Amino acid sequence: MADQSRQWTAALVVIGDEILSGRTQDKNIAQLAPWLNDQGIRLAEVRVVPDDPQRIGEAVNALRAAHDYLFTTGGIGPTHDDITVDAIAAALGVPVIVHPAARRILEDYYRDRPGGLTEARLRMARVPEGAELIENPSSGAPGIKLGNIYILAGVPSIAASMIEGLTGKLEGGRPVVSVTVGARAAESDVADLLRETESAHPGVVIGSYPFFKDGRYGANFVVRSEDGELANATAEELSSRLRQAGYEPVGGGI
Amino acid sequence: MADQSRQWTAALVVIGDEILSGRTQDKNIAQLAPWLNDQGIRLAEVRVVPDDPQRIGEAVNALRAAHDYLFTTGGIGPTHDDITVDAIAAALGVPVIVHPAARRILEDYYRDRPGGLTEARLRMARVPEGAELIENPSSGAPGIKLGNIYILAGVPSIAASMIEGLTGKLEGGRPVVSVTVGARAAESDVADLLRETESAHPGVVIGSYPFFKDGRYGANFVVRSEDGELANATAEELSSRLRQAGYEPVGGGI
Repeated sequence: MADQSRQWTAALVVIGDEILSGRTQDKNIAQLAPWLNDQGIRLAEVRVVPDDPQRIGEAVNALRAAHDYLFTTGGIGPTHDDITVDAIAAALGVPVIVHPAARRILEDYYRDRPGGLTEARLRMARVPEGAELIENPSSGAPGIKLGNIYILAGVPSIAASMIEGLTGKLEGGRPVVSVTVGARAAESDVADLLRETESAHPGVVIGSYPFFKDGRYGANFVVRSEDGELANATAEELSSRLRQAGYEPVGGGI
Repeated sequence: MADQSRQWTAALVVIGDEILSGRTQDKNIAQLAPWLNDQGIRLAEVRVVPDDPQRIGEAVNALRAAHDYLFTTGGIGPTHDDITVDAIAAALGVPVIVHPAARRILEDYYRDRPGGLTEARLRMARVPEGAELIENPSSGAPGIKLGNIYILAGVPSIAASMIEGLTGKLEGGRPVVSVTVGARAAESDVADLLRETESAHPGVVIGSYPFFKDGRYGANFVVRSEDGELANATAEELSSRLRQAGYEPVGGGI
């Protein structure tokens, strides 16, 4: 049984100049967060850092110490700007080696492809010494696990296939249950009602997220708790109080 | 004239449980990054933190000291989960006050709206002592500037209207010029070519971003430099080397 008496947390370091330049919209935060929650692990912090070994190393060392798990995305491909492995190895003070099993995976993967296993492609078998591999069913080159650090690809579909294989394998606690209550209410009109409802239910957090849809204002109120029954009961009470106050419900939120 | 002899940097703190839970996909990184670049300021780091005063305060204090500018998004609305102003004031050791001009803006904005300026809405006039206002043409409630900290709304359209008003008003250096060269090449096949081209042009960084489109692999190579002529010349050389090596160009990238 997983230890459910404490909260398990993870951090994510998103590595890449392309995110910080705005060229590429990050999708890994939004895909890792709910998956982590399903594992009973809360995503507690994200840092986006450039392709700079020192900046990667600082973020990795700060966050691997502060959280149960640290994930990174990006920078593990075959080109010169893929520096994640070297940066993390340097931050941990271990050498980079070619992992024998990773080499075999790449030999198999590139055997019938033009060019075969070139030196550039072999870069993707390099890992910090002591690391294990994370399977990559999409494109051969594996992810890397070193202690509590999980090094994933940056391409969202490849990162997704790597975490798929990790499902159920990480120790965690209880997932946070979220119940959304939508209403045609300006959030400023129901601020007191929200605050009172949250205060009356310790262990529950209520978030308020306004929207503008079909020409009318409204808001989604998200009730979160590690206690699913408590989350549902609080959401029902909130829903009922909003109806009593005359606000039209929006089924299931938007 | 702006000082062009040094690089100006900014950091961004994205505040909100909804981003870390995966409920909401952040759009402010991708919208702030190119705008900052246009101002001659490089987005150098992003942290996403939860609705927790201490975590907000730690990120703000670390990043405002390390960069020329610090932006925050999120948590300045009228409800109990909007705690950015209090968290930043506490981190800076200043009290929170009701800003007279912000109060007038909200009085005008809500004069003809049902309920008028309620206590919840008046929360949006609260600022750390010593702050100036950032105009919000979208929805009344202003953003906040305090020293080198710019506190913006989390709703992307409102954040956009706030930075629009700041355009041209921040001191910066030279924008980074990016030129994209697309080719039907597997990035692992051209790794050496990329590395050599980058090495031959100090002051240039080349990023490699693979894609899969219309059933075929390819990659975009992004040539970046603060020297626009150098970026263009390097991109032309790269393009020519790729054609000579037999790779079909993809005009202007994808």
